[in-house]
Amino acid sequence: MNCTHSDPFFQVLQKLGKTMETKDEQFELCFQNLNKQQTDGSRLFKDVKAYYAAVKAMHETSKRLSQTLREVYESDWNGVEDLALITDSEDLLWNDYEEKLNDQIVRTMENYTSQFPEVKERVAKRGRKLVDYDSARHHLEALQSAKKKDEAKITKAEEEFNKAQNVFEEINNELREELPVLYQSRIGCYVTVFQNISNLRDVFYKEMSVLNHDLYNVMKKLETQHSGKAFIIKGLNRKKDPGDSVFKRETSESPTGVC
Amino acid sequence: MNCTHSDPFFQVLQKLGKTMETKDEQFELCFQNLNKQQTDGSRLFKDVKAYYAAVKAMHETSKRLSQTLREVYESDWNGVEDLALITDSEDLLWNDYEEKLNDQIVRTMENYTSQFPEVKERVAKRGRKLVDYDSARHHLEALQSAKKKDEAKITKAEEEFNKAQNVFEEINNELREELPVLYQSRIGCYVTVFQNISNLRDVFYKEMSVLNHDLYNVMKKLETQHSGKAFIIKGLNRKKDPGDSVFKRETSESPTGVC
Repeated sequence: MNCTHSDPFFQVLQKLGKTMETKDEQFELCFQNLNKQQTDGSRLFKDVKAYYAAVKAMHETSKRLSQTLREVYESDWNGVEDLALITDSEDLLWNDYEEKLNDQIVRTMENYTSQFPEVKERVAKRGRKLVDYDSARHHLEALQSAKKKDEAKITKAEEEFNKAQNVFEEINNELREELPVLYQSRIGCYVTVFQNISNLRDVFYKEMSVLNHDLYNVMKKLETQHSGKAFIIKGLNRKKDPGDSVFKRETSESPTGVC
Repeated sequence: MNCTHSDPFFQVLQKLGKTMETKDEQFELCFQNLNKQQTDGSRLFKDVKAYYAAVKAMHETSKRLSQTLREVYESDWNGVEDLALITDSEDLLWNDYEEKLNDQIVRTMENYTSQFPEVKERVAKRGRKLVDYDSARHHLEALQSAKKKDEAKITKAEEEFNKAQNVFEEINNELREELPVLYQSRIGCYVTVFQNISNLRDVFYKEMSVLNHDLYNVMKKLETQHSGKAFIIKGLNRKKDPGDSVFKRETSESPTGVC
């Protein structure tokens, strides 16, 4: 949807000069674009807030899971100190990710969308000034086309008409300059938000991968430590085995008999 | 908490043979361990389910965000086809991650924790058989210590005592063999769950990073396409600038005047 803004304002008024209302089709297009832009912006802001909330929830559940692992991890199990370090680092990384998402994504969208109500208010003001302007013109035209002309009244009406025209033209010109710039800024907004999201995720994935490998290694240590300590199940003669573990492991007589 | 199981069952009974109740301290330790193991397992299962739910929620919000970007992304913007491919691939990757988390983590914990109710039921059955056994012994002792001995009754009570002892010993021996094995299996469970989680996250982070870079490149293309198309804001003479975008960009006169 394009709205050219290169034609001078007076051309529009000349075209429509003798109708009941001043119409500015280019402005109408700009206004349609503004509405579309605001709708898209609000939707993206909502999505971004939901994304941020989901990241926070993901952080919470990851933290709880790590905390549980730490608490069930017995003090004589290999890797217990590493585990503490890993889970603390994970938490810091999540906090950093959350904070930056909030600063670079949520607030960016908040600032972007916060522009619209004020612009919309100015568009409404333009509408009121347009009504004043049309009304002044009609009043002047009525005096000019009267059988008995009152020059004093016509002069006063001309002054009022010029004043109303100036007021309207000022706000109309401002909006006709600003709305296309604002509309164009949507591209910058999308680029900023999704480049930032991409950068933040990149760092997060990279650093989390390192901690994730560390966690894998802790589990490897634990596995190695206990690989020779499991039990032989001797002479089990029950038909049904409710203790049948899903974790099939090599078992051998425990030297300590720890259960 | 250790419970040795190397001492033959009869030693325990010999020690406590003349008391009112048969006590088996090693078994009590095993039972305490079982309770601890069940509590830890349930907690981990709960955490794992919450983690899985958070991943699903994260997927949903990511998908919605990508979908919105696709819908606001105009058809003449560079990278529009890449974007469609990226968001589709993201969705597939999330689905794969979710499915494998469910198979390898949630179900593993479900299988692990599902063992406990049946084992607990067998522990309760052991308790009932212990009551029968003590009762048979008391009955036999009473007959044996009676002033007027009834040999027929004593023989019958001996048979009943032997039978009760055999029944109790069988289930007691089974549990004394199985509970330590089950207890030991917690290590295998933790290793399996956290190694799997680590592996799945590793693949997910790696593949997501690739798509994430692709998204960054699409945004780069969009930025490049529009870097020369922005507008100069000429002769703005308002004191307050509500259209003041948070996205400061280089602006130049648009050749097409698109707004």
